[in-house]
Amino acid sequence: MTHPFEEFRAKRKAGNEKALETDNLLTKRFFSLDKQAYGDGALDAKTKELLGLAASMVLRCNDCIDYHLEGAVKAGYNKSEIDEAMGVALLVGGSIVIPHLRHAAQSLEFLFQENEKNSD
Amino acid sequence: MTHPFEEFRAKRKAGNEKALETDNLLTKRFFSLDKQAYGDGALDAKTKELLGLAASMVLRCNDCIDYHLEGAVKAGYNKSEIDEAMGVALLVGGSIVIPHLRHAAQSLEFLFQENEKNSD
Amino acid sequence: MTHPFEEFRAKRKAGNEKALETDNLLTKRFFSLDKQAYGDGALDAKTKELLGLAASMVLRCNDCIDYHLEGAVKAGYNKSEIDEAMGVALLVGGSIVIPHLRHAAQSLEFLFQENEKNSD
Amino acid sequence: MTHPFEEFRAKRKAGNEKALETDNLLTKRFFSLDKQAYGDGALDAKTKELLGLAASMVLRCNDCIDYHLEGAVKAGYNKSEIDEAMGVALLVGGSIVIPHLRHAAQSLEFLFQENEKNSD
Amino acid sequence: MTHPFEEFRAKRKAGNEKALETDNLLTKRFFSLDKQAYGDGALDAKTKELLGLAASMVLRCNDCIDYHLEGAVKAGYNKSEIDEAMGVALLVGGSIVIPHLRHAAQSLEFLFQENEKNSD
Amino acid sequence: MTHPFEEFRAKRKAGNEKALETDNLLTKRFFSLDKQAYGDGALDAKTKELLGLAASMVLRCNDCIDYHLEGAVKAGYNKSEIDEAMGVALLVGGSIVIPHLRHAAQSLEFLFQENEKNSD
Repeated sequence: MTHPFEEFRAKRKAGNEKALETDNLLTKRFFSLDKQAYGDGALDAKTKELLGLAASMVLRCNDCIDYHLEGAVKAGYNKSEIDEAMGVALLVGGSIVIPHLRHAAQSLEFLFQENEKNSD
Repeated sequence: MTHPFEEFRAKRKAGNEKALETDNLLTKRFFSLDKQAYGDGALDAKTKELLGLAASMVLRCNDCIDYHLEGAVKAGYNKSEIDEAMGVALLVGGSIVIPHLRHAAQSLEFLFQENEKNSD
Repeated sequence: MTHPFEEFRAKRKAGNEKALETDNLLTKRFFSLDKQAYGDGALDAKTKELLGLAASMVLRCNDCIDYHLEGAVKAGYNKSEIDEAMGVALLVGGSIVIPHLRHAAQSLEFLFQENEKNSD
Repeated sequence: MTHPFEEFRAKRKAGNEKALETDNLLTKRFFSLDKQAYGDGALDAKTKELLGLAASMVLRCNDCIDYHLEGAVKAGYNKSEIDEAMGVALLVGGSIVIPHLRHAAQSLEFLFQENEKNSD
Repeated sequence: MTHPFEEFRAKRKAGNEKALETDNLLTKRFFSLDKQAYGDGALDAKTKELLGLAASMVLRCNDCIDYHLEGAVKAGYNKSEIDEAMGVALLVGGSIVIPHLRHAAQSLEFLFQENEKNSD
Repeated sequence: MTHPFEEFRAKRKAGNEKALETDNLLTKRFFSLDKQAYGDGALDAKTKELLGLAASMVLRCNDCIDYHLEGAVKAGYNKSEIDEAMGVALLVGGSIVIPHLRHAAQSLEFLFQENEKNSD
């Protein structure tokens, strides 16, 4: 049985490929900007993942939350740190963010379990 | 077969528990505020459920809509009253709210059927 | 010196007139629906003003907040009741609603003072 | 096996019927306005489908996107034109729109395949 | 006395210059994409101005509305056409869009008067 | 002559005081949560200011942006770092964020000038 997070990964990958089957330059350039946006710069890539996560939570986009949760775990944040970033987003965005916090908690559990397995 | 509304209830309960498996105080306090928010006060609890419903519809959050529909039915509103509250939300929030009205109509049907069964 | 709320009233009236200088039927019909929406029905007009207020706060629209605050005061709500409705909206919409709560507090003070003067 | 787009069509139809099982006039009139909104007028119906699509994308509503994609394909837009309209929406609405672009790309593929089949 | 629309133009120009006094490449590239987005392509520039306008109205951004109103008038749309595009945006976005429609009506009046003067 | 940022500070202070002239406990507790939210915890206070800034930009709230810009400058971020955080918010939130970036650039200039003066 596939975990919802793995389904998300597969669906996201296939979806991005289909979305880029276009001759629209604006979309291609936007995707390319999006890739560059989260690398090291004046801020390190790690901090920027957290910014992406907070922005995604207050804008209430589960796919975006999952994407940045994955980045945040990979970047080395622990659960307490990610939970605190999400707490700030909850306060800023209000109780309407709670369903996304529920979603994130499930994704986060998967990501930390996967992380642990891989580091064995 | 489980009705989508019952799935929502189960998923919401499990999700809230997982979201609260955290040492983040901000999140815990926010959840506790959220619980207190809908009790009797200067306004009665019944009216406040309807406020929560209208806010949830214009912010287009199905989980929040379901939660407040359940509260509104329990508080004693009839279908005409809830439909009218949702009509106001539709006007304020625009046609983009229509998919959530469709969702709400299905939930509401379940809730009134359940209500009737329980009162037999 | 004119109070900001009186400026809002004048600007709103002039703006609506200009917006309706159009041969677009959709807009005219929408405005007419908007007028009908807050009358007595399955819910009384008073309750519906409060729904309009809560929706306006979580959508963060000062003009809409002012309009429904005026309606809520006229409908007979006292400060505690309106404050409580706005508290629910703050919780649902998050800290991003605070600037609009500040705006509303100023409008509300004006409206209750005006109300008192008129009832002398 | 039913394609997700066909499920959307069936669910939308049933949902609209249930949403209109109401004695709330505001909702009925709103639905009727919505039907009139996309016909020929000062702008032709074709252009208005594209406006509905752009608005739906920046407001991030998949059901609304699907509805207007269907209308846009029926109205005769080709893939490059629709992709360009969606590119503008992506730029205006930001990377948070990307998950909806992925959804739209899948729907669009279905709609053009269906279109081709029907024109055989 | 300067018309509010002229103040907007001056403030926008100065603001963009200050916003671009940065060594942040992401922001510079985003601004450059934004400039390219509204040129002729699979859709003509004229249609794309209207898409930008509809998106700006439902997202309720006065500066963005003013910018695309200017573009739409320059591109040759008449008042009935622009009013109809805004009517669609009003329906999609709801009564919360009305304050922005009021703003747009004032801007539009200025832009058509200016247009007429220049064509004398 | 007062700089717009100083006006914001004065208006914010007076507005918060008026908003708290209420017997509504929910609002008082929410404000108190908001104060606690940005202190040191699993993440340091500095990082959390940046999260608040990114969230405020994508939600397009100038007052909130100003508040977190002030916090970010006080916490020791330099212009390049803040510009980069705002660049991420621009990409996530789209061109609709640009007017807020213009606003932020003006506020930021004031804050760094003030900072320099104070450190003389």
